[in-house]
Amino acid sequence: MKNIFDLSKNGAKKIYIDGTLHPIKVGMREISLQNGKKVCVYDTTGAYTDDNYQIDIRKGMPKVREPWIKEREKEGEFHTQLWYARHGIITPEMEYVAIRENQNNEREDRITPEMVREEIAEGRAVLPSNYRHPEAEPMIIGSKFLVKINANIGNSALGSSIEEEVEKAMWAVKWGADTVMDLSTGKEIHQTREAILRNVPVPIGTVPMYQALEKVGGEIADLTWEVYYDTLVEQCEQGVDYFTIHAGILQRHLPAALKRVTGIVSRGGSILAKWMSINKQENFLYTHFEDICKLLKKYDIAFSLGDGLRPGSIADANDAAQFGELEVLGELAKIAWKHDVQVIIEGPGHVPMQKIRENMDKQIKYCHGAPFYTLGPLVSDIGAGYDHITSAIGAAMIGWMGTAMLCYVTTKEHLALPNKDDVREGVVTYKLAAHAADIAKGHPGAAERDLQMSHARYEMRWNDQFNLSLDPERARRMHFEMIREGSDHCSMCGPHFCAMKITKSIL
Amino acid sequence: MKNIFDLSKNGAKKIYIDGTLHPIKVGMREISLQNGKKVCVYDTTGAYTDDNYQIDIRKGMPKVREPWIKEREKEGEFHTQLWYARHGIITPEMEYVAIRENQNNEREDRITPEMVREEIAEGRAVLPSNYRHPEAEPMIIGSKFLVKINANIGNSALGSSIEEEVEKAMWAVKWGADTVMDLSTGKEIHQTREAILRNVPVPIGTVPMYQALEKVGGEIADLTWEVYYDTLVEQCEQGVDYFTIHAGILQRHLPAALKRVTGIVSRGGSILAKWMSINKQENFLYTHFEDICKLLKKYDIAFSLGDGLRPGSIADANDAAQFGELEVLGELAKIAWKHDVQVIIEGPGHVPMQKIRENMDKQIKYCHGAPFYTLGPLVSDIGAGYDHITSAIGAAMIGWMGTAMLCYVTTKEHLALPNKDDVREGVVTYKLAAHAADIAKGHPGAAERDLQMSHARYEMRWNDQFNLSLDPERARRMHFEMIREGSDHCSMCGPHFCAMKITKSIL
Repeated sequence: MKNIFDLSKNGAKKIYIDGTLHPIKVGMREISLQNGKKVCVYDTTGAYTDDNYQIDIRKGMPKVREPWIKEREKEGEFHTQLWYARHGIITPEMEYVAIRENQNNEREDRITPEMVREEIAEGRAVLPSNYRHPEAEPMIIGSKFLVKINANIGNSALGSSIEEEVEKAMWAVKWGADTVMDLSTGKEIHQTREAILRNVPVPIGTVPMYQALEKVGGEIADLTWEVYYDTLVEQCEQGVDYFTIHAGILQRHLPAALKRVTGIVSRGGSILAKWMSINKQENFLYTHFEDICKLLKKYDIAFSLGDGLRPGSIADANDAAQFGELEVLGELAKIAWKHDVQVIIEGPGHVPMQKIRENMDKQIKYCHGAPFYTLGPLVSDIGAGYDHITSAIGAAMIGWMGTAMLCYVTTKEHLALPNKDDVREGVVTYKLAAHAADIAKGHPGAAERDLQMSHARYEMRWNDQFNLSLDPERARRMHFEMIREGSDHCSMCGPHFCAMKITKSIL
Repeated sequence: MKNIFDLSKNGAKKIYIDGTLHPIKVGMREISLQNGKKVCVYDTTGAYTDDNYQIDIRKGMPKVREPWIKEREKEGEFHTQLWYARHGIITPEMEYVAIRENQNNEREDRITPEMVREEIAEGRAVLPSNYRHPEAEPMIIGSKFLVKINANIGNSALGSSIEEEVEKAMWAVKWGADTVMDLSTGKEIHQTREAILRNVPVPIGTVPMYQALEKVGGEIADLTWEVYYDTLVEQCEQGVDYFTIHAGILQRHLPAALKRVTGIVSRGGSILAKWMSINKQENFLYTHFEDICKLLKKYDIAFSLGDGLRPGSIADANDAAQFGELEVLGELAKIAWKHDVQVIIEGPGHVPMQKIRENMDKQIKYCHGAPFYTLGPLVSDIGAGYDHITSAIGAAMIGWMGTAMLCYVTTKEHLALPNKDDVREGVVTYKLAAHAADIAKGHPGAAERDLQMSHARYEMRWNDQFNLSLDPERARRMHFEMIREGSDHCSMCGPHFCAMKITKSIL
């Protein structure tokens, strides 16, 4: 296991940057180039890539946030990051993410702790931080920051073990997932989540409805607020950092949703729709929303307000059901903020390119600037087997427009449960989409890595090219399929047809 | 070999639609669904998917255009499609592509032969049709039509045989390539091209400079207009349908180009830059441009005016060198049109998302509406090993904006020569990008296949989902990795957590 996190084979190492406001150490990845330059990049692997760290899955990861949490316990009062931000206080978490966001630069436009505080205070950014999950390194989700990506894992009734899911989670952070959602619906949901929480250094999200439904034997009719609330408490205590809660799908939305080409494609959304139709009552997550706020506030768990009515086909994109729910999510965001609870808004789904902009515009209008977190969107329905790509096209575009976090879609979407290799392919694809969006929106220093890559290309520094790419292992393997170590060219053009070699010979 | 073209295993068959103006039969692919519906889609495989056709690589493919060419020979005068279009004549080729462009619809906004003629007459569309390549089925490249994709194949000094390259070419059309460029720079360039020309039913493009350089032993200093012209004649006679000709890179552009981060990354561009710097003379493709027009006119070969100064890094995107050359390409297009020769304009390359729009706008402005044909563009430089995706993001966007043809980029770009599997991955990825663009720009009926796919999804018609996808073989394989035939669900959510099943149970 250690070996998968060995940075040295890719010319990199873990470094730590000290805080100036707080006694913190922020882990980053430093790539050393053959020309002596060093490129510092964002790193999601936590202690796994620290040479001095011994992996022990049973023991779990180091609790990096524990000292700050203990300090607050001594003060005797617990507050959310939103509360601190609103009161003008820059927490260690805020300084941590400010340092993290500045990859390579000493630029004047660099992200500062004060900017982080302000964005959180205004509700435009979220720093997920359940105090029961001290293993998670602080990270921030907001349109002024690097676009983040989430990797979904989790078993289904048809397969996978706890070991496999932990391995997928570790694999996800190795390739750069900023958060991981455990969407297990199969066996041993509690134990699977526990193993994941204790063994990844990133915030964990869940959809508590899945476990609530398992508790009533899969019978939607038997679901109650009490069972759901108990499940929430269980997951709060375990350390989940953000919950997808489908509180915006209401009885009035159902007639339109049921007439769609693909109906309701959100699992949580369909469960609540069914529950409402059986009980002829309003969605209990909506009617009990303030109770949920009060609970989440105690832990500083963020809402990820679920889009139960996201379109599952481009024919259903941007319809009345989808935008009707989005308006409700905006109202709920205001209620959560009243309780100092942080809020993310979930978005689609399947949306053709020409309809993406309207999604972002309406989200900003209805949701008062709360961070948007989209699944893709997929820009066509016929990409089965390639839907990581169908969706990366939409994801890059909506990320550029201001979406703060992109939920990956794997090659197996619509077909099967992804395995470890699918997780890698999905995560790297989404790192690429997020990075393209960072460049397009002008995140400070985002294009520096590209610039160093381009210099390495022009100077034929092959190892630097591999090491600067998002998947050095794949790049290296492909390059050496047809060529031997030490060549100054690649097999694509051969030694005599390399445009860059010819160009340099002019100079 | 026959087996790779067997449509029946994917629920499809070849059908032929008769012309009304001319005695022509247009091959299309018809997918039969379990609910009795039939979906008719564009097909690039020619006779290969005809049940009655026996593949014989030595004999080559049927000459579908031969009767029309013979008819013109009888008339004693040869003209280009542009000449016919300008004279108000709808050729069999024009009617053929009009029928082909209408995939599923009897809509009022369907493409008509007259629209095809008008777009060609105005220079906004190109129908490549060297009369020496009668095996190629007519197809059209223009912003009012379906976005087309090109697959580059060809050997390098470091590998591949004629057999491998022919197999790649057949593989490319199997997965949907609309044209194939043979970019061989290695051994047996003439023989490789001959084998490809005789065995694929799509237009073939080349960069004649590669073979011209081979003829002078790879010595750029020894290149002459005469050697180049001889090479052109050889390739004209062989049947190449369009030539990439880097006639727009001029001496005055070189100082800016040589100062770039990645210099000149076009092979043709770098060769000409070197030649100009050695000889202190203007680009001989520019000075002899009208001679080339006169030659191409005799065969109806289209210019693909090459962007020798396309940016090879996002740092170089949209710079003075790139746009300076583009302006020259626009001037050359007018000269070609004067000779009734069809023209396509090539475009970049590496362009970050926020700079893509300017490329399209400037191309329309400088090039008077001639079809744009871009390589990607790649929206970041750090995607090595995933550059089919980095570039598909840019390709989908620029296709939506009006680019008529997208040159694929494979996973091995920047690393190695692609193999057969890389060709498949690249072609399907680009079919997806082109299709997403067709939907976004509202091509008549483009979203019909997505709609049928979505209905099949909601109704759990699994075979229909596979058969409607762009790569039925991959979709089917992935689905059955964890589940057995006859299941009404997939392993992603299992039998109890399928949102669509739950939704339908409400109704």
